[in-house]
Amino acid sequence: MAEKIYRVNMTTLTATGEDVPEKWKGLGGRGLTSTIVAQEVKPTCHPLGKYNKLIFAPGMLTGTAAPNSGRLSAGAKSPLTGTIKESNAGGTSAQLFARLGIQALIIEGLPQKDTFYRLHVDNNGVTIQEDTELVGKGNYEVIETLTKKYGDKIGIIVIGPAGEMRMAAANISVKDPDGTIRSHGRGGLGAVMGSKKIKVITIDDSDGPGVKVADQEKFRAAVKVFTKGVVGNAVSGESLKLYGTDVLMNVLHEAGGLPTKNFRYGQFDGHEKISGETLRETIVSRKGNPSHICHKGCVIRCSQVYNDKNGNYVTSGFEYETIWGFGAHSNIDDLDTIAEADHIMDDIGVDSIDTGVAMGVAMEAGIIPFGDCAGVLRLLKEIGAGTPLGRILGSGAAGVGRMYGVTRVPVVKGQALSAYDPRSVKGMGITYATSTMGSDHTAGYCIPINILKVGGFVDPLKKEGQIELSRRLQIGTALLDSLGLCLFVGFAALDNQDVFQATIDMINAKYGISMTPDEGRALGRKVLITEHEFNIAAGFTNKHDRLPEFFEEPLPPHNAVWDFTDEEIDSFWNFE
Amino acid sequence: MAEKIYRVNMTTLTATGEDVPEKWKGLGGRGLTSTIVAQEVKPTCHPLGKYNKLIFAPGMLTGTAAPNSGRLSAGAKSPLTGTIKESNAGGTSAQLFARLGIQALIIEGLPQKDTFYRLHVDNNGVTIQEDTELVGKGNYEVIETLTKKYGDKIGIIVIGPAGEMRMAAANISVKDPDGTIRSHGRGGLGAVMGSKKIKVITIDDSDGPGVKVADQEKFRAAVKVFTKGVVGNAVSGESLKLYGTDVLMNVLHEAGGLPTKNFRYGQFDGHEKISGETLRETIVSRKGNPSHICHKGCVIRCSQVYNDKNGNYVTSGFEYETIWGFGAHSNIDDLDTIAEADHIMDDIGVDSIDTGVAMGVAMEAGIIPFGDCAGVLRLLKEIGAGTPLGRILGSGAAGVGRMYGVTRVPVVKGQALSAYDPRSVKGMGITYATSTMGSDHTAGYCIPINILKVGGFVDPLKKEGQIELSRRLQIGTALLDSLGLCLFVGFAALDNQDVFQATIDMINAKYGISMTPDEGRALGRKVLITEHEFNIAAGFTNKHDRLPEFFEEPLPPHNAVWDFTDEEIDSFWNFE
Repeated sequence: MAEKIYRVNMTTLTATGEDVPEKWKGLGGRGLTSTIVAQEVKPTCHPLGKYNKLIFAPGMLTGTAAPNSGRLSAGAKSPLTGTIKESNAGGTSAQLFARLGIQALIIEGLPQKDTFYRLHVDNNGVTIQEDTELVGKGNYEVIETLTKKYGDKIGIIVIGPAGEMRMAAANISVKDPDGTIRSHGRGGLGAVMGSKKIKVITIDDSDGPGVKVADQEKFRAAVKVFTKGVVGNAVSGESLKLYGTDVLMNVLHEAGGLPTKNFRYGQFDGHEKISGETLRETIVSRKGNPSHICHKGCVIRCSQVYNDKNGNYVTSGFEYETIWGFGAHSNIDDLDTIAEADHIMDDIGVDSIDTGVAMGVAMEAGIIPFGDCAGVLRLLKEIGAGTPLGRILGSGAAGVGRMYGVTRVPVVKGQALSAYDPRSVKGMGITYATSTMGSDHTAGYCIPINILKVGGFVDPLKKEGQIELSRRLQIGTALLDSLGLCLFVGFAALDNQDVFQATIDMINAKYGISMTPDEGRALGRKVLITEHEFNIAAGFTNKHDRLPEFFEEPLPPHNAVWDFTDEEIDSFWNFE
Repeated sequence: MAEKIYRVNMTTLTATGEDVPEKWKGLGGRGLTSTIVAQEVKPTCHPLGKYNKLIFAPGMLTGTAAPNSGRLSAGAKSPLTGTIKESNAGGTSAQLFARLGIQALIIEGLPQKDTFYRLHVDNNGVTIQEDTELVGKGNYEVIETLTKKYGDKIGIIVIGPAGEMRMAAANISVKDPDGTIRSHGRGGLGAVMGSKKIKVITIDDSDGPGVKVADQEKFRAAVKVFTKGVVGNAVSGESLKLYGTDVLMNVLHEAGGLPTKNFRYGQFDGHEKISGETLRETIVSRKGNPSHICHKGCVIRCSQVYNDKNGNYVTSGFEYETIWGFGAHSNIDDLDTIAEADHIMDDIGVDSIDTGVAMGVAMEAGIIPFGDCAGVLRLLKEIGAGTPLGRILGSGAAGVGRMYGVTRVPVVKGQALSAYDPRSVKGMGITYATSTMGSDHTAGYCIPINILKVGGFVDPLKKEGQIELSRRLQIGTALLDSLGLCLFVGFAALDNQDVFQATIDMINAKYGISMTPDEGRALGRKVLITEHEFNIAAGFTNKHDRLPEFFEEPLPPHNAVWDFTDEEIDSFWNFE
C-alpha cells in the first residue's frame, strides 16, 4: 500500500513523510495512535512538554463506503489524566486524510517562538506556517473564515481559546460536512495541540490517491449486510435518528441511574423537560434539523441542529451527556440554556462532559447555586476569557474539586464520570474504574445490555457479570475505534452476529487478508493491553482503578451502593 | 508509663482517652504519627474526606531537659501530595502535650454541621465546642484573642483562612513562647484540619503528670554531652545563632546552587541584599531580635524577630527557604517585601515554601512579572481572601502550574522543591526525588556534607555517593523527627560521634532501656519503610520518584544537569 506517515517537528518547524513502517502496517485509528504513543512517548513525560506527541489517524475503514466509518482518532499522553489517551470524532478530516493516503500525522516537539502556527496538509505533504490572525478566535469564527478563504471542501482541525491557553479540559474540534462542529472531546488533547502552538490544521485532498479496496465485490457485499444490520436495529436505526443520544434521558431516569445534583439522586424531576422527546419537539417546532450527520456515510444520524426561539442556529451534535451535565447533574431543566452552553463550549473548545460535570462541582463548592442558568453561562464565558476562575473551570471537574477542597468530585484518574450512575448501572462503574483513559463511558458502553436489553441483559443493579461485560465491550470498542467506526454501530453488532461478521469481512475485503472474528477481538485486546502497559510505565497502578469514596452512599431510588471489592475490580485485567 | 492516646471523633463530636496500646509504646513524633496513619488511614482515601485522620504527637524526648527536643509532629495523608505526611514544628504545644502525658491526639471523622469547632485539651481530657467567633480570622489575631482570654501559658494550634478553605498548601500554626508563630508548613495539613472543621486547639497543662525520666542521672549526663556538642558546632552553635538559616544565601550562591528565576540559574545577582548577613544587620539596626527561640530549651536560636523601618514587629522564624522563594526564585532582592510576605503567610496560614515557589511559577505563567514586589503581596492577599486566583495560589506551585498549563514547575509528587538546585547539589536532588512526602529538603538534608563540609564531604556536582548520603540522612532524620529533636542538632551529630551516642543515651535514660546506636538507626529505617509502604498502597510507584524533566537543562554557572538514571534513583530503596 502507498500509505504514508507524516511527521511534523515543531521544534525545527519541518515536516517529513515516510512510508509506513512494517510494525504499523494495517493499523489505524486508536490502534495506531495508541501504538505510536506507547512506542514513542516517554510515559513519565509532562503532557505539555517536548516529549509528548500528538497523533491523528483515520480508521482502518475510513474513506471506504463502509457506513459510519469516517471517524478520526487523536492520541497523546493526556494532560487531564496523565494516562494514554485516544479521542475520536466525526467531521470531514478523517476521510480527507484517508484519501490523501495519510495513515497518521505525528506532531512532535515544541516551537521556540511564542506564536501560533497553521499546518496545511495536501497531496504534496505538510506545510507549517506562522499564522497569528486567528489566535484567540472561537472555533466558529475560525471555521467560517477559513471556509470563506479556502472553500468548503477543506478539512479543519482547530483549537479554541481553551486549547491555546493549555487548559486540561480543552478539546480539539473538527468541521463537519455542514460547517458545524464535532469534537475530540475528552482528555484535554486541545491543550497538547496548544502546547505545540498549532491553532489549526487544514486539509485538502485534491489529487489524493484515494482509498484502495483489495476486493471491491466482497467489500460491497459486506457493506450491504453491515448497513442492513445497523439500519435495522431499533436503537441505531430508529431511536437515535429520532431523538439523538438524548433519547436516554427518560430511560435513565426510569432506571434510577440518572445522576442528579452531583450524583446525589438517581432520578431528576425535570427529566422530561430536557429529554430527547422534548428536544425533538423543540427542534421540529423551530425548524431545526432533528436528524443530522457528523460525517459523510453516516446512516444513524444521531446529530441534530438546534435553533433558538427565533429559528436561528444555536448548536449541533447536542449530546445526552452534555444535556445531562448541565441538566440533571447541575439541576437545570432548561434546554435553551443548555444549548447555549453547548454552543459556547464548542466555540471556546472545551470538553462538554468534563465542563458540565465541573459546573455541578462548582455548585457543590458554592461558586454558584445548583440550578443557576445564568450562572453557568457566565462561568463558561470566564473559561473563554481565561480568568482565574475560568482557568479552574477549564481544568475540568477534578481541578475545580482540587482548588475548592471539595471531596464530592465524580472523577476517575482525573477525568469526569458521565451520565450513568455507577451504583445503579454497575457495568458503567466498571468501565469508569478500569478504562485506560480515566473515566470514559464510551470506552466500554454497557448501556445496551445493562439498560436497553439490546444484545442481552445483565441486571444493572447486580454485580454479577458486569466485569465480563465491561471487558468484552472495552475490547470490542478498541476494535471499533481502530476501524474508524462510530460506537453506535455497536448496538447492531451486539444484537446481530451478522453485523460483527460483516465488520470483519469489510476489513478482510479492504486489506485482502483473512482475519477471523477472534483475531479481530485479539486486535482490540492488544490495543487495550498496549494502553494499559503505557499507563503502568507512567506510574499508574490498580489503586487508580477506583471510584471516589462517596459512591459508598446509597443512591435513591434503589439505594444502590458501589460494592465491588478491589479484588473484583482488579480481575478486569485478567485478560486471556 | 501513664501515657494516654486521645481520640476525637468529629462525626459524633466525642472524645475518648485510652491507654497507649502495646504496639505504639515507646514511639513518638513522626515515628508515631506515621505508624498510626499507616495502620488506621485507608491509603487510597480522599485526604479531605472522612477516612483521613489528623494526628499530633510530641517527640520521644519532648518535655525533658534535652535541648531542642520540643518539636510537635503532625501527621495525616497529605492533600497536597497524596502521600503520607509528617510535618513538625516548635512552639509550646509539644511540651504541653508531653507534660499532660498525652502521647498522641488522633482526630477522626468529619462533622455533619457546617460550622467550626475548638478543641481544648487539659488534664481532664479533650472537650469539643462549637466556636465560630474566630472563624475567618488570621492566626495573629486568634493567638492574641485566646492569649488575652486564657493567659499566655496555653498552647495554641491553629489554622488560618487558608486552612478553613481547605487549600492544599495550607499549614497548621503553633504559638511560640513569645506569642509569635511557627508552622507545620508542608503538605497541606491545615486543609486536613480545616476539613475536620477545627479552627483551633488550645492546650493547658495545669496539673499534668509531667514527664517521667527513668534514670535522671544518666539523662543529665547525656544531656551535658549532647548540649556541648550542639553548642560547640560551628553551624548549630554559631552561624545559625548569628544569621539564622539565611546564612545559606551567600553560601548557596557561591556554590552555584541557588535556584534563581524559577530554576534557570544557580546564582542570583541580588543575593547579598537578601543574605543572612544583611538580615542580621537590618534586624540589629531596627532593634529587632537576631537570635530567638522557637521553643523552650532551644540552644541553637536560629529564629529571629524582624522589624520594619519604624521598629515595629513584622515577622519571626524568617527562614532561608522563604527568603529564597520570594527572593532569588522570584527575582526579588528586597528583604522588607519578603518579610511582609512572611507575615501575611503566617497570618493566613500557608506554607511559605510552596507559596514562594508558587509565586515564581505564577511569574512563569505571566500572572505577574518576575521581580514584582507589590505583585507578590497583592497575590498573597488574594489567597487570604479566597478569590479564584487566591485558591489557585493557595494550592501550591503544582496547582498554579496545572491551572496555567506551565511545564516549568519545580515539584515532586505535587510538592515544591526548595532553595537548593538538584543539579548542582545532587544529594538534595536524591532527597527531593525519593522522600516519602514529596519534595522536602528537610527529609534528608545533604547541605552539611554537600556544601558545608560538616561531617564529611561528598562533591555536590558529582553523582558518586549521593544516594548513600541521602539514604543515611533520611534515616537519621526519621529518627530525629521521632524524638522531637530539631533537625539542626544533626549538624553536630554528623560531625561528632559523641553527640549521636548522647542522643541514644538520652533515649535509654528516659525509657530505662538499652538501645544501641544501630537500633536507633533501625528505628529511623522502619519509619521510612512504613511511610514508603503506605505510599505504595496509595498508588505511588518508582515512577513518582522523579524530578521534572526541565532539570535536563544545564544550570549555570556549572552547567550541571540532573543525570541520575532511573535505576540509580530506584536503588535508594535498597535498604539494608
